[in-house]
Amino acid sequence: MPACDLDFWFDFASTYSYLAAMRIGPLAEEASVRVRFRPFLLGPIFKAQGWDTSPFNLYPAKGRNMWRDLERSCADLKLPFRRPDPFPQNSLLAARAALVVLDQPWGEDFCRALFRAQFAEGRRIDDAAAVGDVLAGLKIDPQPVLAAAQSDAIKTRLRAQTEEAERLGVFGAPTFTTADGELFWGNDRLQPALRWAKAAAE
Amino acid sequence: MPACDLDFWFDFASTYSYLAAMRIGPLAEEASVRVRFRPFLLGPIFKAQGWDTSPFNLYPAKGRNMWRDLERSCADLKLPFRRPDPFPQNSLLAARAALVVLDQPWGEDFCRALFRAQFAEGRRIDDAAAVGDVLAGLKIDPQPVLAAAQSDAIKTRLRAQTEEAERLGVFGAPTFTTADGELFWGNDRLQPALRWAKAAAE
Repeated sequence: MPACDLDFWFDFASTYSYLAAMRIGPLAEEASVRVRFRPFLLGPIFKAQGWDTSPFNLYPAKGRNMWRDLERSCADLKLPFRRPDPFPQNSLLAARAALVVLDQPWGEDFCRALFRAQFAEGRRIDDAAAVGDVLAGLKIDPQPVLAAAQSDAIKTRLRAQTEEAERLGVFGAPTFTTADGELFWGNDRLQPALRWAKAAAE
Repeated sequence: MPACDLDFWFDFASTYSYLAAMRIGPLAEEASVRVRFRPFLLGPIFKAQGWDTSPFNLYPAKGRNMWRDLERSCADLKLPFRRPDPFPQNSLLAARAALVVLDQPWGEDFCRALFRAQFAEGRRIDDAAAVGDVLAGLKIDPQPVLAAAQSDAIKTRLRAQTEEAERLGVFGAPTFTTADGELFWGNDRLQPALRWAKAAAE
């Protein structure tokens, strides 16, 4: 029996990761699938594909459609949306802080609060003050988390997690992987991934 | 009142265009949306983005996932699937032939038969013999269609159609565009596009 049924790989700067992060909790509960939040960095993976920023910036037609699609999708899902500026934000510190707290009962709430700050409220998430504000909003003392986020142990864990994502074949976010080796890419594949994980666990 | 409610832009070599082409008829009928089939060529649009072949070939992790995703999606949709070889096929003649016949009552059947030949039966669609076989399978005499497909008028129309797609912001296939200027990209957006077109027509 694996420790979880579905790994949810995301980058805090990724637009469609926002949608998946806001949806996955209730959908996973409904499907009785246990989910593990796996923050990683898209940057090194994009760099290996020859990209120095988001493909949504590199390919303008694709980018324009993504922003409009996100507006429409958020309207359908009744999720608030504000386009972040700049895009993409540097998600390094956010990902490290998430690794620090994801074994806490409120760890996933912190991830959702970071996504909400960025994509619903148009706030930045790319420095210590911004990440600290999100922690404070959850009534968590920011200092210990931010200090641990800068530790060598956490830096190494985030690097290892990003390397693991790349080894699994992750090339974008969000991505869902199952214990039996399936990979589902994109917010649009959240429900098929949950169905697969449910069937594999039965 | 526009001549149609939704334009369906596709390239015969595009994997997810196969899924959309096989699904769009019944779904559009159910939604009471009139659809216009708009074959075009992705090649010139990819070239403008700096790609000389499909991004699924240029980015191996993305490509591996696409083939697996297509297998899973076809299984879910109960559609047959065989991976075409080579991929992508040259879809120039197929697109020209489709332009010749799309004002016939069986024009969309021809499009679906071409997709089925390639993605369900593993047949080639990239030369006159292959396209002629598909026509013959529909009890249509191939020669007049193939001759018209090579006419200057049709060559010009396909170029104009591809340029129109690019002007509308099409960057991949399938894409759905509405009379009020919305663009929906990908087979995953077929149902949202139909809902939008239905609401706009009401």
